[in-house]
Amino acid sequence: MQIPIPFLQHVAYKLRCASLELPTRAGSGHASSCLSAVDVVTTLFWAVMRYDPTYFEHPNADRFILSKGHASALLYAVWKELGMISEQELSTYRQFTSRLEGHPTARFPYTQAATGSLGIGLSIGAGHALMARKERRPTRIYVLMGDAELSEGCIWEAAQFASYYKLNNLIGIVDCNGLGQSTQTIGHDTTEIYAQRFAAFGFTVIDVNGHAIPELLTAFDRAQQMYTPVVILARTLKGYGVAMIENKPGWHGKPIPKEQLSVAQEQLRIRFSHAATYTEQYQWNPHLPPAFPIKNNDIPKLKLLPDPAYKKGDQVATRTAYGDALTALGASYPALIALDADVKNSTGAETFESKYPDRLIECFVAEQNMVSVGVGMARCGALPFIATFGAFFTRAHDQIRMAAIGTSPLRLVGSHAGISIGQDGPSQMALEDIALMRTLPDSIVLYPSDAMSTYRLTACMADYADGISYLRTTRMPTPVIYAPETRFVIGGCQVLYEYPNAHASVIAAGITVHEAQQAHDILKKQHNILISVIDLYSIKPLDYTTILHVVQASNGRIITVEDHYIQGGIGEAICSALAHTSINITMLGVTALPRSGSPQELLAWAGIDAQSIVAKILQFSKN
Amino acid sequence: MQIPIPFLQHVAYKLRCASLELPTRAGSGHASSCLSAVDVVTTLFWAVMRYDPTYFEHPNADRFILSKGHASALLYAVWKELGMISEQELSTYRQFTSRLEGHPTARFPYTQAATGSLGIGLSIGAGHALMARKERRPTRIYVLMGDAELSEGCIWEAAQFASYYKLNNLIGIVDCNGLGQSTQTIGHDTTEIYAQRFAAFGFTVIDVNGHAIPELLTAFDRAQQMYTPVVILARTLKGYGVAMIENKPGWHGKPIPKEQLSVAQEQLRIRFSHAATYTEQYQWNPHLPPAFPIKNNDIPKLKLLPDPAYKKGDQVATRTAYGDALTALGASYPALIALDADVKNSTGAETFESKYPDRLIECFVAEQNMVSVGVGMARCGALPFIATFGAFFTRAHDQIRMAAIGTSPLRLVGSHAGISIGQDGPSQMALEDIALMRTLPDSIVLYPSDAMSTYRLTACMADYADGISYLRTTRMPTPVIYAPETRFVIGGCQVLYEYPNAHASVIAAGITVHEAQQAHDILKKQHNILISVIDLYSIKPLDYTTILHVVQASNGRIITVEDHYIQGGIGEAICSALAHTSINITMLGVTALPRSGSPQELLAWAGIDAQSIVAKILQFSKN
Repeated sequence: MQIPIPFLQHVAYKLRCASLELPTRAGSGHASSCLSAVDVVTTLFWAVMRYDPTYFEHPNADRFILSKGHASALLYAVWKELGMISEQELSTYRQFTSRLEGHPTARFPYTQAATGSLGIGLSIGAGHALMARKERRPTRIYVLMGDAELSEGCIWEAAQFASYYKLNNLIGIVDCNGLGQSTQTIGHDTTEIYAQRFAAFGFTVIDVNGHAIPELLTAFDRAQQMYTPVVILARTLKGYGVAMIENKPGWHGKPIPKEQLSVAQEQLRIRFSHAATYTEQYQWNPHLPPAFPIKNNDIPKLKLLPDPAYKKGDQVATRTAYGDALTALGASYPALIALDADVKNSTGAETFESKYPDRLIECFVAEQNMVSVGVGMARCGALPFIATFGAFFTRAHDQIRMAAIGTSPLRLVGSHAGISIGQDGPSQMALEDIALMRTLPDSIVLYPSDAMSTYRLTACMADYADGISYLRTTRMPTPVIYAPETRFVIGGCQVLYEYPNAHASVIAAGITVHEAQQAHDILKKQHNILISVIDLYSIKPLDYTTILHVVQASNGRIITVEDHYIQGGIGEAICSALAHTSINITMLGVTALPRSGSPQELLAWAGIDAQSIVAKILQFSKN
Repeated sequence: MQIPIPFLQHVAYKLRCASLELPTRAGSGHASSCLSAVDVVTTLFWAVMRYDPTYFEHPNADRFILSKGHASALLYAVWKELGMISEQELSTYRQFTSRLEGHPTARFPYTQAATGSLGIGLSIGAGHALMARKERRPTRIYVLMGDAELSEGCIWEAAQFASYYKLNNLIGIVDCNGLGQSTQTIGHDTTEIYAQRFAAFGFTVIDVNGHAIPELLTAFDRAQQMYTPVVILARTLKGYGVAMIENKPGWHGKPIPKEQLSVAQEQLRIRFSHAATYTEQYQWNPHLPPAFPIKNNDIPKLKLLPDPAYKKGDQVATRTAYGDALTALGASYPALIALDADVKNSTGAETFESKYPDRLIECFVAEQNMVSVGVGMARCGALPFIATFGAFFTRAHDQIRMAAIGTSPLRLVGSHAGISIGQDGPSQMALEDIALMRTLPDSIVLYPSDAMSTYRLTACMADYADGISYLRTTRMPTPVIYAPETRFVIGGCQVLYEYPNAHASVIAAGITVHEAQQAHDILKKQHNILISVIDLYSIKPLDYTTILHVVQASNGRIITVEDHYIQGGIGEAICSALAHTSINITMLGVTALPRSGSPQELLAWAGIDAQSIVAKILQFSKN
């Protein structure tokens, strides 16, 4: 089915007009960045991709990811032109009530990803492509990048990943218009620099005039024949077709002023007069995706998770229990996949790998790509659990933030929480991860204290699909304190000790639960003081009702104890929840840059060990 | 001065022994990762680098950066062998009282950077190298990386930066031992893949047997002749020289067990019998750095900052005022340098560039590298101000975290704070930056509401050298509310309205100060209700005394209003500061995923505009 070039040029003309006009009407937007990409996008949607606009989520359909999310007006114009959104809706671009946001978000159903922070599209595409490969679906993934965003290192993480996994169903297109936001791009005078880089990272490189639709057609045709991932370097001009802005700096993110719009429109009309006046009645139909059925593996089997064999008092690291849980879940959830960044022997994921070697995706030491690959895989119905040291999720904070904007149900597991890791020192200690994860809209933050609760909470995460869930695990073994029948739920807590008229309540989580228990015993035996102790294994959301109940029965005194910086951590979460009450809160946590040492030395140094809790409680007694 | 090879091999032998023994004695550490790097490091310190161990900070001295920070035992052994730390101190490796931490931190004076989160050394080295180039110092910078860390995208950001700025004084060495922590590296069977990548990124590549000192000497000699940055791919074996672990997986981060240590030592002794028994009395002296004087530009001129011309009521965006202040500071601080990630026309830094074109370093869209380059430049006495959108500092969160561990005095400026940016949508809105920056030890977080306070606070940042300082700026113009004589200090606040027995206090910062002022006026005029209003321009540290004083005079009621997620933000900072009091706090802030829209629509949607504040205050009246 050969599509007539004049028809494609006519579609392109309509997209150019919309690219130009939408930002001016909205009063903001990126007209020039849309105009450079119009021919590429037209060719893709009207002549290359196999998809059904009315069923764009067909498992076999080709996918398009707009990594340069600022060209959103063009994406919306495409879906209007395809008949899926109305002219009226298109005119709501960037308005408060509109799904058509400044950069694409999950509120626009036809986008494959929320984008707008540069460099993440190729990773998301790689996640899609890998899932398609695993499921033997013929889907191809097209990712449109800008040349400025090739400066982001995560692009090269994605490129390495794609070539390592031989994802020849991943086709990147770089809109090489040579102009960034404020300056020329690194490769503004030649695409050779990009060609060398992509080739070195294992891509087949195709260099093409990005405004010549016949050349683009040939390029996409070649791209489909390769055994490696492909990048098409499309040489373009920013603002193409509108003489007043074409290839001129200073027009990034600036719409044509209203009073100059008609001049600009006229410039387009003159430049593309044939396309503008095209009248032939060509009946375009989409290339539909291959219809052959694919296996649907994302329906959980209704198989109960076996109880783990942990016994009270066993010394089991929570990171080990995470691996155990994941392995058990693997049987019930065929869609469950583990991603790890060359630390699977630390995070616990290697237990899963030993049972399901094909279901652990080694992402090497490239956390940013790992997270965005997870976004792509989740979009295909996979249930990725993504693990690394908690500290190293800071490396992927932006990708996690963007995943939250995309409402992706990522499951993140950060091991080696806090100073209790000991000798490896501050660079390896997650001390801001709770703060980071709490800020994410609709996120869940779990921090179990023992193997049993870790096992149960990992299972809870598998079923949480409304946002990002985060599980924080501890390096060293801790005693199992819960029986198999104890129930753990997102938003719950465990009251370990509770007394009417207790002297104070201690709220702890993870490693500090054990310190709080010891403090309880010391105070009871040596000082005849009773304190209530809460294991706050669910930090977000938190069990406000239970906390309030316990605290009100303990003289209104709370001590929070956490192996995390005070800022944004458990103490502040409790302060926040109880801000409207008159309850006094004393926060124990890490307040200075830690160092290497033994776990117990460090817990004492930070003032979060049992003795520090005891000392603080005894201070209350004096007052 | 030709150093005898047998002498170098003898030094290497001693370093091998220390690399093997230190982790075993400490009970943890990375012996195998040290052993692969011993020959490279010996050659560098004893035959290549020009430095004086007793004055290693000589401006002209060559520098060594251990990007693979887990090989810390080797670094410490080197400085012991150079006579700068004692055998006794060496034996404190990884102990709580020791400067010799698990990964190098700023507590070890001979390290150029805190490392341990992979991939950041090359950027820090590039910062050093660029400063040396600017100051015409002959310093060369050597950065030792592992091959596993080449998977980190920030390596390629650094590589692009180094070749773009033609930093031929930057020499990377990759310890290509082929084994990561848990798996083989991408290039385990050939270094060709790395060679292609570095070459594509503009490096001269030298491939060498990393255990042959004569080959290494030749390689370093060649490296000094190049006009581009250089990378030496040193083919090595993990655990080299100790047969029981050499080139074997499963030994990453695991010391040889105590009971096997003597066997391992014997294996070393047999393998390197000549080096072990070397007795020649060669008197080694370091290659001293060239002594010619360099200009010292880091002493601030005692020139008063001119008052800005802003007048009360002028509409000036705080991001614009940042650019003005930076430009004014440029005259007083010759060491001041601006770094920007292709958004200088958004952050305000282009004003500075227009006056000091040579002092703005364009880092392109590569925020991770930008931050670590700043660390390197600061280490050389520069005073870098690093700007991008506040949202995009999340991309460099790990690098910022590591800079804090390195006690680097970075000055970070994040523009486009909060939902008030409007139409561009959530991907561009900084809504977690306060939380992120608050968690950093010794950090300062500033968020001015008008141009005048921004100008003054930027000047405060220039003088703050005890940690990372962060300034948060607003996209849209806001009225100037302060006179030139108003004083702004780190840790201060401005009480805009204060009444004895006020109905409540509103604590705001940045954009919400203006909403709070409006709320004050509405309540006063329409409801005859008086509220106190505090401009909390310094969020960390915060002015506890003033806040408590104002709040106690206002019925103990506080409303915090912030254009940031509640978690870790201004409200929680206030809750935290007042946790031990009985004061009730009502927090207004962003609690859900935002969207595109006009700034005023979004402020109303989030419930942080003047009307929302008024409504909340009126609720108090009913109670």
